[in-house]
Amino acid sequence: MRYHKIPDETIRRLPIYLRGLLFSSEQGQERVSSQGLADFLGVSPWQIRKDFSYFGDFGTRGVGYKTEKLTKEIKKILKLDAAHKVALVGVGNLGSAVLAHAGFRSYGLEIAAAFDTDSKKIGKKVGGVIIEDVRKISTLRRRKVDLGIIAVPRDTAQKTADALVKAGLKGILSFSPCHITVPAKVKVITIDIAIDLARLPYYVPAS
Amino acid sequence: MRYHKIPDETIRRLPIYLRGLLFSSEQGQERVSSQGLADFLGVSPWQIRKDFSYFGDFGTRGVGYKTEKLTKEIKKILKLDAAHKVALVGVGNLGSAVLAHAGFRSYGLEIAAAFDTDSKKIGKKVGGVIIEDVRKISTLRRRKVDLGIIAVPRDTAQKTADALVKAGLKGILSFSPCHITVPAKVKVITIDIAIDLARLPYYVPAS
Repeated sequence: MRYHKIPDETIRRLPIYLRGLLFSSEQGQERVSSQGLADFLGVSPWQIRKDFSYFGDFGTRGVGYKTEKLTKEIKKILKLDAAHKVALVGVGNLGSAVLAHAGFRSYGLEIAAAFDTDSKKIGKKVGGVIIEDVRKISTLRRRKVDLGIIAVPRDTAQKTADALVKAGLKGILSFSPCHITVPAKVKVITIDIAIDLARLPYYVPAS
Repeated sequence: MRYHKIPDETIRRLPIYLRGLLFSSEQGQERVSSQGLADFLGVSPWQIRKDFSYFGDFGTRGVGYKTEKLTKEIKKILKLDAAHKVALVGVGNLGSAVLAHAGFRSYGLEIAAAFDTDSKKIGKKVGGVIIEDVRKISTLRRRKVDLGIIAVPRDTAQKTADALVKAGLKGILSFSPCHITVPAKVKVITIDIAIDLARLPYYVPAS
């Protein structure tokens, strides 16, 4: 089975399929159909079958996919079959919400460190994680943290990214709507709430 | 110019292009190239040209696109040429971060109402918006609010969506990782932080 040359858009959808599969597992469903997944996730069954076709044949037509096997395959493709440690920088409202988020573990992701500049926050525990001084970001390399989340104000986002890259991180999820420059080997994914909200009016019929 | 039958994936990318164009405008750039936009946004210039091809010809090869004209066109396609009022439900850490977010206005989106169940929060002002009792969600219809953001705990997400739909809202942005059932005429977009984080390991080279 070949895992290269998968379109980014397919990779973007795989974790969504994974969410549907994890839910099906919880419900005790041994098999799922592309139609069932599609209904649950709000995508087209055609899209699901097309995305899966990049990885070989996961299911039998009319019988559906084996939930457990497909879950394992997708986790393997996404490299979620091994655990990943994640560092959060910025424990304001957004950062606190991230620390309180219970959904990471299902994907093998663990928030292992949190940093802030505010001396009143440093040393305190939020969502089970002790907040450290941002100057300790450099310790992430030996702590084997490879992913980071940036939830700092816009004007310090680039500086934060630089520090994370210097500490050896290879993937960054940024909540900052500004552009962040990193070396080509580092992947940045941006969550911009305004951008997602801006997609909605297109679907709203004129009243 | 025809605006129908545009793939969802293209619609998903248009606000991202819009962000790039708004930035170019701020910088005083009268023209942008697909390559320039691509570099800034981290997408391929081929993808940009393909997406724009759905709406007719925006630019001249080698000369680039006119920033202002293209901005207007995309806003029109996304129905962002008229202002939209948005209601937020749930003013916890995440909701407070949404209220503090300064980026909505550039897209003609205004957070016009915020709701919570906590009597200690009701009546207080966060990010310039007075927090109201969730039981007042029904007033949104006459206040001409057509979009909603759900930032409530997972177990009340569906109930919140029901109330928003009943109040006439046509588009919902949900931060709840669970599945929400709404009538077909209502569009739901989900932001699941875990899902976005789960995409990163794929791009991380094995160390």
